[in-house]
Amino acid sequence: MDRLKTTISRITALDEVSMRQARERQDQLTKPQGSLGVLEELSIQMAGIQGQPLPYVSKKVIIVMAGDHGVVDEGVSAFPQEVTPQMVANFVAGGAGINVLARHSGAEVRVVDIGVAAQVEVEGIISRKIRPGTSNMAVGPAMTRAEAIQTVETGIEIAEAEIAAGASLLGTGDMGIGNTTPSSAILTVFSGVSLDHSVGRGTGIGPGALEQKKEVIRRAIRINQPDSEDGLDVLAKVGGLEIGGLAGVILAAAANRVPVIIDGFISSAAALVAASICPASKAYMIASHVSVEPGHKLMLEELGLKPMLFMNMRLGEGTGAAMAASLVEASCKVLSEMATFAEAGVAEKNEAEVEH
Amino acid sequence: MDRLKTTISRITALDEVSMRQARERQDQLTKPQGSLGVLEELSIQMAGIQGQPLPYVSKKVIIVMAGDHGVVDEGVSAFPQEVTPQMVANFVAGGAGINVLARHSGAEVRVVDIGVAAQVEVEGIISRKIRPGTSNMAVGPAMTRAEAIQTVETGIEIAEAEIAAGASLLGTGDMGIGNTTPSSAILTVFSGVSLDHSVGRGTGIGPGALEQKKEVIRRAIRINQPDSEDGLDVLAKVGGLEIGGLAGVILAAAANRVPVIIDGFISSAAALVAASICPASKAYMIASHVSVEPGHKLMLEELGLKPMLFMNMRLGEGTGAAMAASLVEASCKVLSEMATFAEAGVAEKNEAEVEH
Repeated sequence: MDRLKTTISRITALDEVSMRQARERQDQLTKPQGSLGVLEELSIQMAGIQGQPLPYVSKKVIIVMAGDHGVVDEGVSAFPQEVTPQMVANFVAGGAGINVLARHSGAEVRVVDIGVAAQVEVEGIISRKIRPGTSNMAVGPAMTRAEAIQTVETGIEIAEAEIAAGASLLGTGDMGIGNTTPSSAILTVFSGVSLDHSVGRGTGIGPGALEQKKEVIRRAIRINQPDSEDGLDVLAKVGGLEIGGLAGVILAAAANRVPVIIDGFISSAAALVAASICPASKAYMIASHVSVEPGHKLMLEELGLKPMLFMNMRLGEGTGAAMAASLVEASCKVLSEMATFAEAGVAEKNEAEVEH
Repeated sequence: MDRLKTTISRITALDEVSMRQARERQDQLTKPQGSLGVLEELSIQMAGIQGQPLPYVSKKVIIVMAGDHGVVDEGVSAFPQEVTPQMVANFVAGGAGINVLARHSGAEVRVVDIGVAAQVEVEGIISRKIRPGTSNMAVGPAMTRAEAIQTVETGIEIAEAEIAAGASLLGTGDMGIGNTTPSSAILTVFSGVSLDHSVGRGTGIGPGALEQKKEVIRRAIRINQPDSEDGLDVLAKVGGLEIGGLAGVILAAAANRVPVIIDGFISSAAALVAASICPASKAYMIASHVSVEPGHKLMLEELGLKPMLFMNMRLGEGTGAAMAASLVEASCKVLSEMATFAEAGVAEKNEAEVEH
């Protein structure tokens, strides 16, 4: 618990002075003020995070946490549980969607076994298994509170190692058959939205299985009674090992003044847990895309984050984060590389005209 | 007119066989089918455009057409006309938004003076001035029909030179103080939407100037009576030199089976002109972002295109196209670089489960 407490105590507000300086420079660049929209806002957020008026992105790392879910016993997923370790092996071999998109964005990928149900022995994986999958949350808590804390602290430790090794931008990614089920549960517990709005088809279940999935989540919440004011309680009772690990990554990023890009539905569930544990961490989060999974939009609203990419994706793994990483990098380049009106000898806006 | 006629005659439908092969491969890749959404659709469109099951993106070129507008006499813009040549110089010097974003995406930028009102003598510009700005469309046609044809044919010629030099992906970009005014006029003429929906604040005019701008466009349409069934007539009467040039770029891309990314409001006006001249060209267009300019969304709907990026941008220059170019490239890499279920030894979906 010490590592978590220390991490939380280090999370502070963004640097207003750097943000004001970045805003002033944006307004001098050769474009109508505000015309680069979100790219301008991102550069200013980055300035506030890094505490410098000209923020930058150097090494980008996507941390993919993998874990299994006891609740798959209830038939909530379209894929068998053996796919989790198989996909972990695929990540390490470089053949998955996240590998292709991270390579394209110039980001590195770290793969963490924080709780895969099977033994995973592949070279290149970070083995930090806390337990081989959660318990079935439809019959009791997914894990103990101590285990939940351990997942978060493991995420913190891994993220801090990456930051120490030079990462200036982190992205979150997940793998775990069945993990839209705890994510929907987390959304409903924190926001109070009905299961009809928080539960979707995940990797592609049919209408019958969808109703079954809602019923399973309803039961899990009724049996476990998670306390919506206590992020660790929610994580332990209806969460997942990879979700806790990603919440730790997010908190570590905030504590170390490093921006963290939130991927899709599962990563956003982790962000809700992180925001519950430490609301100030939200200022360090950057949304990437909005998923097909219907609850994702609601999660982003709950977090106060605006997605940039609308690409009907629903893969997870950090694929949205990898694409957004390139946009965040672009925002910093705009701020530092564009010419000012004075440098380029370009006339500014005709203020008389504006006041028509 | 010969070059335009020949170009139109070469535009055919996408290659269905290659698209089917690309779809089949997408469905074998290690992800739930369809879970990469628009990235999958883009790769299939690319296969159909290039006529091969594994499409690729090599050299990316953004063609920025610059031209001036006689209608600025009516006070429709927040910036003075001298900004057009100043920004053209900024493009060539590499200090504008498009330069930064194109460099980031690995795209090259070509800058064409197709109708800047001032003399532009900067090294690196492609000088193809047809006339120094259009006439004021609020008192008569912006240009003659012969000139309109010449703008389109100039765009075709420039795009074909780029394709001959190896460009496999084109993007459109614009510069021209006042050019949201003809673009709004073009949208209203083709779609019939009211000026309250097609006209916006451009680079940032105030509410009074906005009403003035609508009145100017109303007058231009009433006086010129553009024929909505005749794209060249619309272009000549209420269009612009850079808009015609970009319509030519789009038609040349389609004729040469090269994808073309449509930037924002002005580029989409050019796309409406191209689609009117040759509806089959729409299959070769790829939308990038949706602009703050309210009519842009309507233009994309009119074209049947779906934007990927929602970033509140309103700069033009090809900035949205440059960012989307990287996403199109990513879509091709997903298709060719991801492992299949068989290659990676990953179990496929449990079909019994799906049919619950």
